[in-house]
Amino acid sequence: MQTIGTNDLISSDKVEGTTVYNLEGDKLGSVDELIIDKLSGHVRYAVLEFGGFLGMGTDRYPMPWSILKYDTVKEGYVVPLDKARIESAPRYPDSDTPAYTQEYGRKVNGYYGVDY
Amino acid sequence: MQTIGTNDLISSDKVEGTTVYNLEGDKLGSVDELIIDKLSGHVRYAVLEFGGFLGMGTDRYPMPWSILKYDTVKEGYVVPLDKARIESAPRYPDSDTPAYTQEYGRKVNGYYGVDY
Repeated sequence: MQTIGTNDLISSDKVEGTTVYNLEGDKLGSVDELIIDKLSGHVRYAVLEFGGFLGMGTDRYPMPWSILKYDTVKEGYVVPLDKARIESAPRYPDSDTPAYTQEYGRKVNGYYGVDY
Repeated sequence: MQTIGTNDLISSDKVEGTTVYNLEGDKLGSVDELIIDKLSGHVRYAVLEFGGFLGMGTDRYPMPWSILKYDTVKEGYVVPLDKARIESAPRYPDSDTPAYTQEYGRKVNGYYGVDY
């Protein structure tokens, strides 16, 4: 018997809170929430929570779902981004979530080279 | 400014816990979790939590995402199902989650008349 998450399907509850790494294996943070297109039921973005070092608050980084790859050894997601790419990535503090308008979506997708 | 959830996009955090009604306006329960196709990023099922009346435990009812309609007046989802349809619907106790295999998926979709 399989449980949800071992097959091709996974529960949103399992995705949220899962650790996120970069290609070098450094732990960046975790998945905070998923942003879903209501009508099509497509997950558009995973919002990652990075930071919180040295007493600093964390920021939220929306990334197209398609760039997250699950690593079964690490038991976490890997994003193919180095430090410089992440440092200049679209982000916001949790207290100041932007409107996920088409314009914002295009900005996020454009940054990661993913078609909107 | 819009926040996530007022536009075409909604956060998984907002979906989970949202109240679910039937067409008569009776409160059935709430959304427990979403089941996502890892590769395509499609939300396949919303798992609804119904029951809990008279000290009974609740059951989980997986339903194709496409049958849930958001009602902006009720601020909840409406499913077009009467009591009889729900009473015989696929369900499981939270303690005994089935494998979401293709076979199980076909059973669930078949019950609701939604293509797998």
